[in-house]
Amino acid sequence: MSNDWRAMWAELGIDLEKHDQFLAALPELYEKTFINQFNRPQAMQYFDFVISEVHGLRVKELVDHKLKGGKVVASFCVFVPEELILAVDAVSIGLCAGAQFPVATGEKVLPRSICPLIKASIGFKLDSICPYFQVADFVIGETTCDGKKKAWEILNDFIPTYVMELPQRKEKEDYDLWEAEVNRLMQKLETETGKAVDFESLSQAVAKVNNRRKVLRRLYDLRKADPVPISGKDALLITQLAFFDDPERFSAKVSELCDELEERVKEGMGVVPQGTPRILITGSPMPIPNWKIHDIIERCGGVVVCEETCTGTRYFEQLTEEGQTISEQLKQIAMRAMKINCACFTPNNERINDILRLVEEYKIDGVIYYNLQFCHPYSIEYYKIERALQAAEIPVLKIESDYSEEDLPILQNRIQAFLEMVGQ
Amino acid sequence: MSNDWRAMWAELGIDLEKHDQFLAALPELYEKTFINQFNRPQAMQYFDFVISEVHGLRVKELVDHKLKGGKVVASFCVFVPEELILAVDAVSIGLCAGAQFPVATGEKVLPRSICPLIKASIGFKLDSICPYFQVADFVIGETTCDGKKKAWEILNDFIPTYVMELPQRKEKEDYDLWEAEVNRLMQKLETETGKAVDFESLSQAVAKVNNRRKVLRRLYDLRKADPVPISGKDALLITQLAFFDDPERFSAKVSELCDELEERVKEGMGVVPQGTPRILITGSPMPIPNWKIHDIIERCGGVVVCEETCTGTRYFEQLTEEGQTISEQLKQIAMRAMKINCACFTPNNERINDILRLVEEYKIDGVIYYNLQFCHPYSIEYYKIERALQAAEIPVLKIESDYSEEDLPILQNRIQAFLEMVGQ
Repeated sequence: MSNDWRAMWAELGIDLEKHDQFLAALPELYEKTFINQFNRPQAMQYFDFVISEVHGLRVKELVDHKLKGGKVVASFCVFVPEELILAVDAVSIGLCAGAQFPVATGEKVLPRSICPLIKASIGFKLDSICPYFQVADFVIGETTCDGKKKAWEILNDFIPTYVMELPQRKEKEDYDLWEAEVNRLMQKLETETGKAVDFESLSQAVAKVNNRRKVLRRLYDLRKADPVPISGKDALLITQLAFFDDPERFSAKVSELCDELEERVKEGMGVVPQGTPRILITGSPMPIPNWKIHDIIERCGGVVVCEETCTGTRYFEQLTEEGQTISEQLKQIAMRAMKINCACFTPNNERINDILRLVEEYKIDGVIYYNLQFCHPYSIEYYKIERALQAAEIPVLKIESDYSEEDLPILQNRIQAFLEMVGQ
Repeated sequence: MSNDWRAMWAELGIDLEKHDQFLAALPELYEKTFINQFNRPQAMQYFDFVISEVHGLRVKELVDHKLKGGKVVASFCVFVPEELILAVDAVSIGLCAGAQFPVATGEKVLPRSICPLIKASIGFKLDSICPYFQVADFVIGETTCDGKKKAWEILNDFIPTYVMELPQRKEKEDYDLWEAEVNRLMQKLETETGKAVDFESLSQAVAKVNNRRKVLRRLYDLRKADPVPISGKDALLITQLAFFDDPERFSAKVSELCDELEERVKEGMGVVPQGTPRILITGSPMPIPNWKIHDIIERCGGVVVCEETCTGTRYFEQLTEEGQTISEQLKQIAMRAMKINCACFTPNNERINDILRLVEEYKIDGVIYYNLQFCHPYSIEYYKIERALQAAEIPVLKIESDYSEEDLPILQNRIQAFLEMVGQ
C-alpha cells in the first residue's frame, strides 16, 4: 500500500501509530497464506490488489463519495438489507471484525467471554484503526445474538448505531415484524440521505445485489468440481471482499475468475489432486483477516470446497424476488432475509437440511464445524447438526477458536488427525 | 424429608441413587447457611419446612393434582404469564436450575461456555433427579437469551418444550408480537387442559398472582428499614420459593412473616446492627440452592437488603392491571411483562433508573453486580450500569461466578475488601 494515504487516514481520525502497528503484520500473513499456493488462478490478482489497497484506494473511493454528498453506511450482518442502502445512493460496507489486534481494546468495555468478532469490531472503533468505521456515517446493527445486540448499545457511544430487530422465529408475526423493520430502515435511510426510495432505484439496487449473489453462486458451483479449480482460502477471500468492494466491479471481476475456472473444470485441472479430502466448513462467520482454519486445513492436505457460513453460502444463496410495487419490493427484501437459516432462529432445522444438501452437492468427505469462541447460538446448535451428520455417516469435527495464534498447534493436530481419518 | 417419598419418586422415574447423592449435601448446606442466623424471624419456620419438603410434600401435591386430572406446567422465567396457567386450573412451577450437581451432565449436550443455570436445568432433566421436571406435563421456554433459546431445542428431545418468543425491543411492533404470543399460549393451554379460559377464571388468576406480588412488595418494603428486620438470605429464599409453593398458601405465610417484621421495624429491631453496609444485588437470577453470594456478603459483615434480579424485584414489582374483557385482560398480561427491564431488551436504559431508584429507596451503601458466568446480556450491560453508578458515586463491584465452590476464597476476599471500602 502506498504511503500517500497517511494524510487521508489522519484526516479520518485514524490513530496513525497504532494503525501502522496493526497493518505491519498483514502483508507477511497474506503472502504466507495466499501467494505461493499451487496453480493459483490468474484472476486472483485482482483480489490481491484489492486486499493490498483495502485501507487505501477503496477508502479513498468512499471519501470521494462523501465529498460528492453521498453517505457511507456500515454493517456487520447478512440480514441488513443492502438493497435499501444502495437505493438511496449510499455505499454499504462491511466492518472490520476479523483481527486479533484490537481484541484487547474491545475487552476494555466488553467482557472477555464474548466472541472475538464483537470484541474486535468494538476494539477497531475504540482504537481508531479501521478506516471504514472512520468514514462511515452510521452503523446498522441487528439483534442476531446477545453479544451483538448488547454491544451496539456501547458502540453507539462512539458512533451512531441504528439497530434492526431480527425476530427469533419464522412465524407470521415474525415476518410482519421484520417487514416493519425493513420499512423503518427505509425511512431512516431516506432521512439520513435526503433521498426518497422509488420503484426504479430499488429495482436497480435489487438487481445489483442479486447479480453479486449470482456470480458468487457461480463461483461456488465451480467449487463442486473434482479436482476443485480454486482453493478454499481464495474462495473465502472473495466472499470476504464482497462486503467491501464496489458491487458492480466486484461482480465483473468474479465473473472473469469464473470464466477461468470454467476452463479449468473443462480441462480437469485443479489446485489439488483428485481424491484430496473435500471439506465443508459450517458455523460462525470468518471476517478478514481470519483465514486460520482454511489455512490449516489446506496445509494439512485437505481442501475446503464450501462454507455454510455468513461469509459463505448464507451470504448469497437466497435472491431477492422481484416486486411490482415498492411495498412488494420491501416485502421481498424482508422475505429473502427470513429464508437465511441462521442459528439465531429457533427452531432452525432447515440448516440441517442445508448442510446435508451441501454435503451431497459438493461431494463432501468431512465437515468441520467452526465455532467462534463464546458464540452461543452456533455452539449449542452443534448438538443437532452433529446428530444429523452422524446419522448420515458424515464425519464431523467441532472446532472452537478465537483470532489468536495460541491454539494453532492444537488445531493443527486435531485437523490433521481428522483429515487422515476422512481420507481413509 | 421422610423416606415415604421413595415410592413416589420411583414412580415419577427419578433416578433414586443419583437423587440420593444430590440431596445428600443439601441439609448441611441449608443448615450452615440459614439455621444459625442471628435473631432470625420466627415465621421463617414455614419456609424451612417448605424447603425440607421441596422434593416431597409439594411434589405429592402436584401428583395428587394430576390424579384429579389437572396439569402441571413448568417454566424458568418471569416473562411466562403464570396467570394463564392458573386460569386453566393448571399448576405453574419454576424448575430446578441452581445447583452444581447436574452441571456436568448438562455439559454432555451443551457447550461448557454456557451459563450454569442452563446447564443445570438440562442436567436436572437428563439426570432424572428433579421431581418437578418429572411431574411436569410440559415446559414453557422463552427466547430471553441465546443460551436458553437454543437449549430449549435440545430439552424438547427429553420433555415437550413450548417456546414463547419474547421480542427484543419495546416498540409498538414488539408489544403486538408479545400480545400475539400471550394469545398463542392461551390456546396452547386450552388445548392441553381441555379447559377454556373465561373472564372469571382469568380475573381470579390475575388476582391470585397479583396478591403474591403484593405480599412480596410488602416484604421488600420492610427491608428498607434500618436496621433491616430480615437477612438477605432469608428474603432470597422466600422469593425463590415463590416459584414452587402454592400461591395462596405462600402469600398467607409471607403476610404472617411481614406482620412479624412490621413489629420489628416498630421496635427498631434488626438482624444486624444499624450501620451494617447495606448491599443491593443486581444482575442474573439465583435459583435454589444458589445462596452463595448472599452468604458470603452476610458472613463478611454486610447485609443484602434488595435484589434487582428475576429472583428479586423483577419478579414482583409490576402488577397486572385489570381488564374489562378477556382480550383486554390478555393485553394487560402482555403489557405487564413488557414493563420488566431485563437485559434481553435493547436498549434497556430503564434498568439504570430502576437501580438508581432502589439505591435511594433501600439506602444502599454499595452495589454488587452479580453475573452468572457466560450470561452475556447482563455481563455486557454492566458497562452502562457501572458508569451510571459511578456518576452517582455509588460503589459497585462486579462478580462473575458459577455454582461451584471453587471460587469461594477469591469471592470472599473481593467481597470483604468491597465491604470494608463501603463501610468506611
